[in-house]
Amino acid sequence: MPTQARINSDRLAALLGGINGFGFDPGSGGYDRRAFSDADMAVRRWFMETMAADGLDVRMDSVGNVYGRVGPPGPAVVVGSHLDTVPAGGPLDGALGVAVALECVRAIREAGLALRRPIEVLATADEEGRFGGMLGSQSIAGAVPPGWLDAAVDAAGVPLTEAMRAVGLDPGLAGEAARDPADVHAFLELHIEQGPVLEAAGKDIGVATGISGCAVLAASLVGAANHSGTTPMDMRRDALVGLAEVVAAVPGIARDVGTDEARLTVGFVELTPNQPHTIPGRADFTVIVRDVDHGAMAMMIGALETLLAEASARHGLAFTSGTRSWLDPVALDPALQQSLLAAAGSLGFDPVSMPSGAGHDAQMMARLCPSALLFVPSEGGISHAPGEFTAWESIEKGAAVFLKALTRLAAE
Amino acid sequence: MPTQARINSDRLAALLGGINGFGFDPGSGGYDRRAFSDADMAVRRWFMETMAADGLDVRMDSVGNVYGRVGPPGPAVVVGSHLDTVPAGGPLDGALGVAVALECVRAIREAGLALRRPIEVLATADEEGRFGGMLGSQSIAGAVPPGWLDAAVDAAGVPLTEAMRAVGLDPGLAGEAARDPADVHAFLELHIEQGPVLEAAGKDIGVATGISGCAVLAASLVGAANHSGTTPMDMRRDALVGLAEVVAAVPGIARDVGTDEARLTVGFVELTPNQPHTIPGRADFTVIVRDVDHGAMAMMIGALETLLAEASARHGLAFTSGTRSWLDPVALDPALQQSLLAAAGSLGFDPVSMPSGAGHDAQMMARLCPSALLFVPSEGGISHAPGEFTAWESIEKGAAVFLKALTRLAAE
Repeated sequence: MPTQARINSDRLAALLGGINGFGFDPGSGGYDRRAFSDADMAVRRWFMETMAADGLDVRMDSVGNVYGRVGPPGPAVVVGSHLDTVPAGGPLDGALGVAVALECVRAIREAGLALRRPIEVLATADEEGRFGGMLGSQSIAGAVPPGWLDAAVDAAGVPLTEAMRAVGLDPGLAGEAARDPADVHAFLELHIEQGPVLEAAGKDIGVATGISGCAVLAASLVGAANHSGTTPMDMRRDALVGLAEVVAAVPGIARDVGTDEARLTVGFVELTPNQPHTIPGRADFTVIVRDVDHGAMAMMIGALETLLAEASARHGLAFTSGTRSWLDPVALDPALQQSLLAAAGSLGFDPVSMPSGAGHDAQMMARLCPSALLFVPSEGGISHAPGEFTAWESIEKGAAVFLKALTRLAAE
Repeated sequence: MPTQARINSDRLAALLGGINGFGFDPGSGGYDRRAFSDADMAVRRWFMETMAADGLDVRMDSVGNVYGRVGPPGPAVVVGSHLDTVPAGGPLDGALGVAVALECVRAIREAGLALRRPIEVLATADEEGRFGGMLGSQSIAGAVPPGWLDAAVDAAGVPLTEAMRAVGLDPGLAGEAARDPADVHAFLELHIEQGPVLEAAGKDIGVATGISGCAVLAASLVGAANHSGTTPMDMRRDALVGLAEVVAAVPGIARDVGTDEARLTVGFVELTPNQPHTIPGRADFTVIVRDVDHGAMAMMIGALETLLAEASARHGLAFTSGTRSWLDPVALDPALQQSLLAAAGSLGFDPVSMPSGAGHDAQMMARLCPSALLFVPSEGGISHAPGEFTAWESIEKGAAVFLKALTRLAAE
């Protein structure tokens, strides 16, 4: 006789610990499961064995995504996240969402609930973008740009195709990872927030309304590298002074031109020659432009370019500026958001609707099927670092909400 | 019967060409005669032989300074500059002043003028500061700080003492290079301006009023390196935004707090982590503070530190700031300045009195004896680069003024 499905906290902790048995990096105290590394492939095989032992039908697709399926034929509810990490990553980014997905299946089956729809637990490949994209979910969604796969290399110059072949994957078959939309009912992902919003609001559950678009503006200011002692202030063409005027104005552009969710970041600056006694002749830098609104992104880029032109004119500089990449904002499925919010409310939690400033597999899956993304808090907003941490109580709450929503979608 | 001494332009050009027969660097198209390198020692030996062939009494002192003396006993008028270069340096910085000094002696002797005072042609050692100071002129002036010689290393970590021993100089005898003030009547140096002031004013001759002081302020701003997408603008502690506010205000501080000769330069910036998608958590940077007035330097440093504190408070940053080195402004001898100005005027030139923003041997020699510094223009203000250039006509004018002043001082 079926009972209420419940998260088994110890079992979830053990499963998460099992995943993090792979790729521990004593040097950083974090985890290194970069896509297609030994640790990444080992955790994938281990996770397949674990799901197989649970009686799921397991497979690895042609780009390394791992699936475990259970339930009747028909369009599946896909749940999961990724197993790969950045170098010196934390224990939760990706791994938590995969562990919660399998724990929910275990809880549903333990409770004896019949599945109306099949559930597929998914652990995607290279979400962290070792090769510059989200290979796994992009492939599933059929959203890999033509030619990209053959051209992609990692930071060390290793081609993606070579890395795939080294682990036994045939890049020529990558297209076979694409799923037919008719076979996928929905995608649900649980992830740490990777930001400070939930913690600051004192909330445990966030439901993503969408995922911010992200453009990379690459710009250069070019002046003249002269002697710091002999060049009078009014005869300088100082690229750094021009850059400083732009950067100092960036928060105002986000505030005045973007939406409330605008984020502008100058994270990379390279000065030439970058010597104390020489006026900087050149500044190359990037601006990461994020917003939930396509028009706001374009307007902020326009405002930045106007500012670049004005600062260049004031300081005798030349400038170049170009949009190096552009990802549109993605709206997540309103009905699935509502389902997550309702599940949270029914468990007595007070969820926050919020956009995701970070990219996630859900933004790619949203091209294929209705998709949703549940957040749990990140203490101090820290992620992509060994100090990444979420209180276990918050994780339990998130898992319970996820289970409730999944149960309603697939089992009741 | 004595005639008017005249610069022999071809002879000067041949001498300059002879010096630049050493250390040509085909890779850069410039010259590499770093202190105590093979090329530097070879040019010193060649210059000693050249002066000896002219009948001068030559010697190398205990730190590598090369002298050639002519004339009666008594306190000498010392004339010259340096033979060493920076890596990929130009053909004029230092070499021109040495060549003009010897050409003037040749011209005076050729004219049959009797010397009232002895003249010493001087080519100093390591003016460019391979080991962080001006070893040659500091040693002559007895101005080497205690312990510095044993501690100094070059950018590659080579100790100064080792470099000296490798060329046969005994660091233990370095103190013997100090001259008795009673033996030195004056020091005169001709040098390229290394700045754009003479060219912009359309003048051929500059007479230095002094040499700006130079302080190095090393500062850090420390915030938090967080995710560029998930961290709201108002929850950031962005070290680069704080730095930008400081740098953008730097020209205003120079204008409002310094003298007309103030120069403030932020030439070096290191961001951490310096990744496009991460908010800069830390910015380390230097400010080079130069002015002709000690008090103005101190006030500008105070204003910078106030600005750092204000920007830090606005952006939730911590900051540190410290003065890493301090060289006082040096005033050059008023009578010698007047003598150079008068010589220029008598030859029909319109000289400019101006401070030197760059450091020169004259600032060290000024501790020992009345010293003066004559400038010829640097096209485009370029120096420390292969493109360093001064029109030959300007060089001839500078040499003629130098000869006239030297003749009045030593020969008439």
